Amino acid sequence: MLSTLTYLSAIGGVVALIYAIILAVRINKMESGTERMKEIAQSINEGAKAFLFSEYKILVIFVATVFVVISVCGIITKSDVLNYRTALAFLIGAILSTLAGYCGMSVATKANVRTANAAKEKGMNSALSTAFSGGAVMGMCVSGLGLLGVCLIYAITGDDNILFGFSLGASSIALFARVGGGIYTKAADVGADLVGKVEAGIPEDDPRNPATIADNVGDNVGDVAGMGADLFESYAGSLISAISLGVLAFSGSSSWKYAVFPCLLSAIGLISSIIGTLFVRGKDGKNPQKALNTGTYVASILVVISAILLSYFMLGTFRFAIAIIAGLLVGLLIGTITEMYTSDKFPFVKKIAKQSETGSATTIISGIAVGMQSTLIPSILIGVGIFVAYFVTNGTGADGTSGIYGIALAAVGMLSTTGITVAVDAYGPIADNAGGIAEMSNLPDEVREITDSLDSVGNTTAAIGKGFAIGSAALTALALFFTFAQKVNLATIDIMNYKVVIGLLVGGMLPFLFSSLTMDSVSKAAQSMIEEVRRQFRTIPGILEGKSKPDYKNCVAISTHAALRQMILPGILAIVSPIIIGVLLGAEALGGMLGGSLTTGVLLAIFMSNSGGAWDNAKKYIEGGHHGGKGSPSHKAAVVGDTVGDPFKDTSGPSINILIKLMTIVSLVFAPLFGNGIIG
Amino acid sequence: MLSTLTYLSAIGGVVALIYAIILAVRINKMESGTERMKEIAQSINEGAKAFLFSEYKILVIFVATVFVVISVCGIITKSDVLNYRTALAFLIGAILSTLAGYCGMSVATKANVRTANAAKEKGMNSALSTAFSGGAVMGMCVSGLGLLGVCLIYAITGDDNILFGFSLGASSIALFARVGGGIYTKAADVGADLVGKVEAGIPEDDPRNPATIADNVGDNVGDVAGMGADLFESYAGSLISAISLGVLAFSGSSSWKYAVFPCLLSAIGLISSIIGTLFVRGKDGKNPQKALNTGTYVASILVVISAILLSYFMLGTFRFAIAIIAGLLVGLLIGTITEMYTSDKFPFVKKIAKQSETGSATTIISGIAVGMQSTLIPSILIGVGIFVAYFVTNGTGADGTSGIYGIALAAVGMLSTTGITVAVDAYGPIADNAGGIAEMSNLPDEVREITDSLDSVGNTTAAIGKGFAIGSAALTALALFFTFAQKVNLATIDIMNYKVVIGLLVGGMLPFLFSSLTMDSVSKAAQSMIEEVRRQFRTIPGILEGKSKPDYKNCVAISTHAALRQMILPGILAIVSPIIIGVLLGAEALGGMLGGSLTTGVLLAIFMSNSGGAWDNAKKYIEGGHHGGKGSPSHKAAVVGDTVGDPFKDTSGPSINILIKLMTIVSLVFAPLFGNGIIG
Repeated sequence: MLSTLTYLSAIGGVVALIYAIILAVRINKMESGTERMKEIAQSINEGAKAFLFSEYKILVIFVATVFVVISVCGIITKSDVLNYRTALAFLIGAILSTLAGYCGMSVATKANVRTANAAKEKGMNSALSTAFSGGAVMGMCVSGLGLLGVCLIYAITGDDNILFGFSLGASSIALFARVGGGIYTKAADVGADLVGKVEAGIPEDDPRNPATIADNVGDNVGDVAGMGADLFESYAGSLISAISLGVLAFSGSSSWKYAVFPCLLSAIGLISSIIGTLFVRGKDGKNPQKALNTGTYVASILVVISAILLSYFMLGTFRFAIAIIAGLLVGLLIGTITEMYTSDKFPFVKKIAKQSETGSATTIISGIAVGMQSTLIPSILIGVGIFVAYFVTNGTGADGTSGIYGIALAAVGMLSTTGITVAVDAYGPIADNAGGIAEMSNLPDEVREITDSLDSVGNTTAAIGKGFAIGSAALTALALFFTFAQKVNLATIDIMNYKVVIGLLVGGMLPFLFSSLTMDSVSKAAQSMIEEVRRQFRTIPGILEGKSKPDYKNCVAISTHAALRQMILPGILAIVSPIIIGVLLGAEALGGMLGGSLTTGVLLAIFMSNSGGAWDNAKKYIEGGHHGGKGSPSHKAAVVGDTVGDPFKDTSGPSINILIKLMTIVSLVFAPLFGNGIIG
Repeated sequence: MLSTLTYLSAIGGVVALIYAIILAVRINKMESGTERMKEIAQSINEGAKAFLFSEYKILVIFVATVFVVISVCGIITKSDVLNYRTALAFLIGAILSTLAGYCGMSVATKANVRTANAAKEKGMNSALSTAFSGGAVMGMCVSGLGLLGVCLIYAITGDDNILFGFSLGASSIALFARVGGGIYTKAADVGADLVGKVEAGIPEDDPRNPATIADNVGDNVGDVAGMGADLFESYAGSLISAISLGVLAFSGSSSWKYAVFPCLLSAIGLISSIIGTLFVRGKDGKNPQKALNTGTYVASILVVISAILLSYFMLGTFRFAIAIIAGLLVGLLIGTITEMYTSDKFPFVKKIAKQSETGSATTIISGIAVGMQSTLIPSILIGVGIFVAYFVTNGTGADGTSGIYGIALAAVGMLSTTGITVAVDAYGPIADNAGGIAEMSNLPDEVREITDSLDSVGNTTAAIGKGFAIGSAALTALALFFTFAQKVNLATIDIMNYKVVIGLLVGGMLPFLFSSLTMDSVSKAAQSMIEEVRRQFRTIPGILEGKSKPDYKNCVAISTHAALRQMILPGILAIVSPIIIGVLLGAEALGGMLGGSLTTGVLLAIFMSNSGGAWDNAKKYIEGGHHGGKGSPSHKAAVVGDTVGDPFKDTSGPSINILIKLMTIVSLVFAPLFGNGIIG
């Protein structure tokens, strides 16, 4: 029965993948427009793949190393968690996450030009639907492959311990995709803007700028593939922790039901997401945001209804449904709050725009103040979510553990609609790219107007998506953290223990250090890009007159290598820190460290993402004609804010999601190595 | 024996106060220079007192309210900690802290003009010694009154519980002085600069600027009185927690020794500080920094020797001396690290200056990256300090508690040289003011050169002092936190408990929110100031030609009221948050909240202070002729960094010290109100 129902859940993943294939084929069949458009799209596609293949070269070495390390540790420790089967699961997790990213991005880079062409030939509705279909492929690949992988491994082996290997694999890819991609996208962006716009005085997305293609590649690499890998990790991690805690919390013959419940729920969520995507249809003269919201709401309502039925008929109580719904609601509300702090329809962004009148310093200060203030409601929301999920489920099984199972269910609930959430999120960069292609191909202004209006909605969905990614990373990391504590049989993680306090402080420091490193990485990678663009302007004759073609490929290659090289130090920090603390001070101190990094990590990520988003939209608000409009001193000040916000919101902030999840899963997998610590 | 030795310790405080009086009388006898100089000094003195008296008006109401609340709660709960005696101790703590601030600031505002005059009449050495003597009065008042108050209360009552009232009193004053003063000083600074320098184009400290006096008052209000109250709180808090934990950790007839040990050690530290100040003598052609360092090192070495002897002969082991020395060393090292990150002799500030070449956005990003990175070593240092202090002392008494006593001793050790640390720190604003007076009185350039070189040293000592203030606040808050946990008889504060996790997250968020509020407060208060300066320029005829005098007093009054009004919201947040969490979720969740706010608070304070300090010195480095020098585009970018850094380093950063200590002591005093929480 266990394996039957788990296989059944896996079928949900298969359905999603079939749906993804249908959408991909349909997109592929669409017209891509003029020769010029095709050429540009081809360059972006090739650039994105060039990044991925460079990344894969390092990935292969990395994955092989970790595979060997886990296997060797397994031989030494003879542990249930750490063995060659875990290593295999790790491999599968890494491969599936890579596959999801590759397929999603391939389709996204095809959908962009077709979106531009649809805008040109058929108008807004068709463009919206094309861009969204492209995003939906990513969404279906992420959740389909995630669900399929976890359920198949669990159905075949019936062993929840080796699933952590799968989660570690997903986390490793996310590290490369989100951190490396985040560095890439901002380095290319800064390089393109600084030399092109500021030094040479040519407009954004101008084909004479050698970094233009790299800039557009960056949108796909960072915002599509990076975000997808981030959510793949959260999706798999929360599901796995729920399975594991379900096994731990409930004894007796029906224990398996609690492990299968989250799988079935995820499958239902995935089907609900597919149904939701069918409701995303643009209407002429209507805001595309409405169409996207409708899809999300339909999927959410379907999950709520199914959760209630499933919880009652399968587990005999509504309690587990409440935990699921709590998570789902918290996710939706965090998205809404994020929008509140980063959209110009609300007073916060308007305040920053107003402060731009007195110069860039006041713009920066008010943006930082807004970002810091924006931590208030999300942290209380997460707190309330934890409270409700624990409170309603505790006592249904083992005391304490069943409540923790409820928290993991809340994470599963929040992520159940990942399919459509990723679709909405990935829609943004596709629309953005479509605009870039329209600009570079000199398409008529009406086309650019359509893509601009799609893009402006994309900015909002991107902000909401970031909020959702942070919220889900927080709940996932928390669920994994509890699983860690259970698996290493810690009676307590007591802040009154001096080692735990040390762990808390050091753990709290890591997100600050990590953010500092990723910001430095962007600066350094951007520097390489700036030099290359300057070199091309200097050495290629006639490039600025549009008479000769810039060498786009070299720009892509340079920022690829710079980004991947700059990723190494923060990556090592994330993987090695928990092992050092675990070995030195023991498992309980490691628990403190994870608690500390989770706390400051979530807050810092919210602060940085929202400051960045708010600055971005304050600039756009001014460009819309307020406080002097484009070119005014206010606008100049706002551009400074936006430039500071870029690494905040697109590199450092999102990278923290990876840090907190990766450190927790590393701790979980390597837990057998940690005793009481070799010192103290 | 207990009371005899405690009285003996109190005598150390009396000696310090006598020394302070001698210094004050000596300063008072010195010449204050020309009529113009006297007039300006008089205005600063009056302005500073005007701020203090306005503050006192609110303080009286606040203190009276808390006094009544504690007394009433005492009647209801019939608790050992919460009763009318605690309320009395609260009153004494508040009065003594106020007294220390008032006396120290009065002398500082007299020493500034005499420093300017000494520079004019006698040269560098005499000016250095005058400025330092002024600072020393503050140092002696802070530690003398702190030691005297704590020891007398303890000697008379023999009750360590009511001492927490004293600590709460000190914390309350610190809230007003550090947060209110921090808002005042930056509002005045921004107001003076923006309208004077930018809009009217007149130089800094120009007497035609109506905000000039307010700006100079701000140095005293924020950097002298605010910093003094902050360290008074740490000094008293750490001593009190050591006394209390000494009583708890050691049973038997010699238990009293462990309570008296920190008192005696503080008395020795105070005498050592006095001896240290005698070693601060300028030599012609030598860097004044050396003289200041010598004083600090002499005092530290004396404390180390005394700690070893006292620990061995009084408590029969060297172990407690090691804890003391660990704290002292961590304090000195954090100061050194702070200097490393904020002085232009090291690569970090140089890097920011270099980044200024590419505009203000890169200046901001690199400054934030440097500040975030600067959290690494201090948090590890504090961690090592905690480890050593706990490890060597645990097992000497009750298991666990004796180790915690060791951590409190480390805090006492770090703060034992507060006398000279405050002296060095308060020297900076006095030298800064002396420069301002020299400028406003049109003294010759040679005089300004001397005050400038004193001031530049003052910037370094201010940065070190800030690092020390944060480090000591962290250790003090930690010691109080452990005392809280012991006093409410918590068996554990377990992060695996869902309520503790909620507490951790909400507590972690509070420093972000608090910083956001204080930054907003500066903006709002600065706005009032800007409007007033503009109004005076507009309505007072001949003001810009120097023909008629600006209304300095009105500027002082306006920024005083704005600062105090803007202080209310963050102040309420600090006091009410722990009570709400304690009542709603109970004492253990409150423990989690304190742990969370301690973690993010310390890190955020280090980040903000060091980013601010680094930007400030990057600007000065450029002004020194690098990267294009004064007036270059690099300089303009660096000015933006400095302006963002101002509220970072002088308002929000230091205010967090108060937040984390105040929340802990509020929890400790009101602990009898919290049970298991009314929900969950």
